[in-house]
Amino acid sequence: MPSSPSGPDQAPPRLESRAEAKRLDATDPLAGLRERFHLPEPDLIYLDGNSLGRLPLATRGRIAQVVDQEWGAGLVRSWEHWLDEGQRIGDRLAQHVLGARPGEVTVGDNTTVNLYKLAAAALDHRPDRPVVITDRDNFPTDRYVLQGLAEARGGQLELLDSDIDQGLDLEHLRSALARHHGRVALVSLSLVSYRSGALLDLAAVNDLVHQAGALVLWDLSHAAGAVRIDLTGTGTDLAVGCTYKYLCAGPGAPAYLYVRRELQKQLVQPIHGWYGQRDQFAMGERYQPQPDIRRFLTGTPSMVAMAGIEPALDLVATAGIDRLQAKSRALTAALADLVARRLSPLGVRIASPLAAERRGGHLTVEHPDAAALHRALLSEAGVLADLREPSRLRFAPTALYNRFVEVWDTVERFEKLLRG
Amino acid sequence: MPSSPSGPDQAPPRLESRAEAKRLDATDPLAGLRERFHLPEPDLIYLDGNSLGRLPLATRGRIAQVVDQEWGAGLVRSWEHWLDEGQRIGDRLAQHVLGARPGEVTVGDNTTVNLYKLAAAALDHRPDRPVVITDRDNFPTDRYVLQGLAEARGGQLELLDSDIDQGLDLEHLRSALARHHGRVALVSLSLVSYRSGALLDLAAVNDLVHQAGALVLWDLSHAAGAVRIDLTGTGTDLAVGCTYKYLCAGPGAPAYLYVRRELQKQLVQPIHGWYGQRDQFAMGERYQPQPDIRRFLTGTPSMVAMAGIEPALDLVATAGIDRLQAKSRALTAALADLVARRLSPLGVRIASPLAAERRGGHLTVEHPDAAALHRALLSEAGVLADLREPSRLRFAPTALYNRFVEVWDTVERFEKLLRG
Repeated sequence: MPSSPSGPDQAPPRLESRAEAKRLDATDPLAGLRERFHLPEPDLIYLDGNSLGRLPLATRGRIAQVVDQEWGAGLVRSWEHWLDEGQRIGDRLAQHVLGARPGEVTVGDNTTVNLYKLAAAALDHRPDRPVVITDRDNFPTDRYVLQGLAEARGGQLELLDSDIDQGLDLEHLRSALARHHGRVALVSLSLVSYRSGALLDLAAVNDLVHQAGALVLWDLSHAAGAVRIDLTGTGTDLAVGCTYKYLCAGPGAPAYLYVRRELQKQLVQPIHGWYGQRDQFAMGERYQPQPDIRRFLTGTPSMVAMAGIEPALDLVATAGIDRLQAKSRALTAALADLVARRLSPLGVRIASPLAAERRGGHLTVEHPDAAALHRALLSEAGVLADLREPSRLRFAPTALYNRFVEVWDTVERFEKLLRG
Repeated sequence: MPSSPSGPDQAPPRLESRAEAKRLDATDPLAGLRERFHLPEPDLIYLDGNSLGRLPLATRGRIAQVVDQEWGAGLVRSWEHWLDEGQRIGDRLAQHVLGARPGEVTVGDNTTVNLYKLAAAALDHRPDRPVVITDRDNFPTDRYVLQGLAEARGGQLELLDSDIDQGLDLEHLRSALARHHGRVALVSLSLVSYRSGALLDLAAVNDLVHQAGALVLWDLSHAAGAVRIDLTGTGTDLAVGCTYKYLCAGPGAPAYLYVRRELQKQLVQPIHGWYGQRDQFAMGERYQPQPDIRRFLTGTPSMVAMAGIEPALDLVATAGIDRLQAKSRALTAALADLVARRLSPLGVRIASPLAAERRGGHLTVEHPDAAALHRALLSEAGVLADLREPSRLRFAPTALYNRFVEVWDTVERFEKLLRG
């Protein structure tokens, strides 16, 4: 009997038939959430939620309300409550997704800009430490931002070797910290690798970095909403992430940033905008940053874009992050098992960690004809996966709206394609 | 007879009666555009469009289309056309609002972040020149950003004295450029002052700055959509601005940035994100900025927020910027004349330049009880103006949707309030 997806400690399901997948869906406590999403092509198997999450039905009404009522009717008066939206929504993200305390998270700008602000603040806090560490397989924008900041300060970016299937081996981090003893200002990593889906050990990395006297900055973009995160419990210093993947807030929706409460007053980010200014509307002569999380803001955020975050967050809160993680792991484990048994003999190689607890919400496979297979999966099999040129496909069965039967059908159809 | 608002060279209208105001509305070639806006309180006289422009009716449908069709149905496939939206819309802003050439404008981030990027790029381009110049009355975020950038580079921000009613006297700029001969990297000013509405001479400032061998960066936020701007014809180097005032794109809608074509390859901005990367999806190891305007982008912009720009821009294009400027000047001139004649004796002082051609789209007045008057204007007179603590009120009769009769009624009701 396949295990139910309700507990993280249970063995992952091994699907032997479509009927079994349907039985898992029938007992899935989160199954009802699928109906809360817009599904204009009911037969489309959408497995690219790690790139852009689906549209919750409630989002349409919420955005229309902000446009019609808050902007159209409220006009400039609505700024009275808009001003604090980033902090209010940030607190809800902290509670339901990030494991952070009130006042530690705010929303605004995009992930790149947020990463830039926090990384710069960390480096300027440690001007005597010239080294920044990340891994060679980190998401490009992270590497570029860190490289630019390090070079602008006459410092150095250390790129750790990282297995593009298995993720970073912490021994590489440990030895780099030892090699640059006393010279590392910041270590910045992605909790879940965008390419392989490899999940790092948040607490273990934090401990290593803190032992070296450095700060740690996490990019949670590919993790938030798929895996349980405990920023406070793990002593995380800094984090950023987007809201448009598993958090389903819409294309390019504003990103969040987290700064540990005890660090906030010590850090000053370099974009000195009026949204970070104490007593914003006094229009004072000099920049005096807010004493709290608001000092990490820049300028006016889009309230229409911001409106997309909460309807999806309501669904995440309803599900609970533990159940989302359990189902996400069960889905990817079932997929990995089927790929290993049925597609490996046909030339498909799993390019993710094999253990479900070492992965985030997606599974990556490699095949020399990935681009053609990506097209054929959509046009002939009704499966929308994600292509990573030149040879990788990513599949992200998302706990909020994907089903076990979709995992089964994906592999069935993929096998049929491969057999030509 | 009052003059028509159709030509910029005609004498400004002097209203002697409500009937005369209604006659001006009846012959206003732009009058029909008002019906293209959402007016849920038809009797509200909204004069705060310099803070947040009204909602065009077409915007609701366009945003719903992006949410439902492009996100909800198109899903991740929509990025194929979303990727270039900033440049496509930027080209339309260049044509209809900014007087720039194709490929010189893009949209994304907020005004503060855009100002930061372009100012930093200019300073890093002239590392031998430590001085940045702005004026003491420039918008706070502009001053803070420039101050932060200058200090981070060991440079100096020179704050020009500026008359808070009349705006900057170019003699102050001329003498500062002479005093810092050969040491000025950048001059950054607002084309229209957020406080007084004073309009600077774009061409004259550009010439002065260029003679000093410096670059010039304009904040067009309070100008765009209200006054004619010719960035190319005046040899402007750099500019930024928001889209949510006269351009009616919605609260916090993405901002634009302009970089003169000939300068683009010479400037590198400091936020090295993947949207600025040449061959973005190759995910290359090092940051190699795009050869064009895209190098000034950072990360993923909100496509839902971006959707608010074009429906309003369609109205601006229909009206034409010359007619918008002519009507805007006629409205503010009629208002200034009525204030001078009817409210000055009651203690209201005009705190803007008196000549219409020296103002942008708003008129500022001063009164010691401004805060109480602001409240009373809304609650007792149905007029929503803008309060600038402690003693100023701003009135922005906006050419796209305000009427001459609203100007008349505002002064009538304001007078009644003042007479108690």
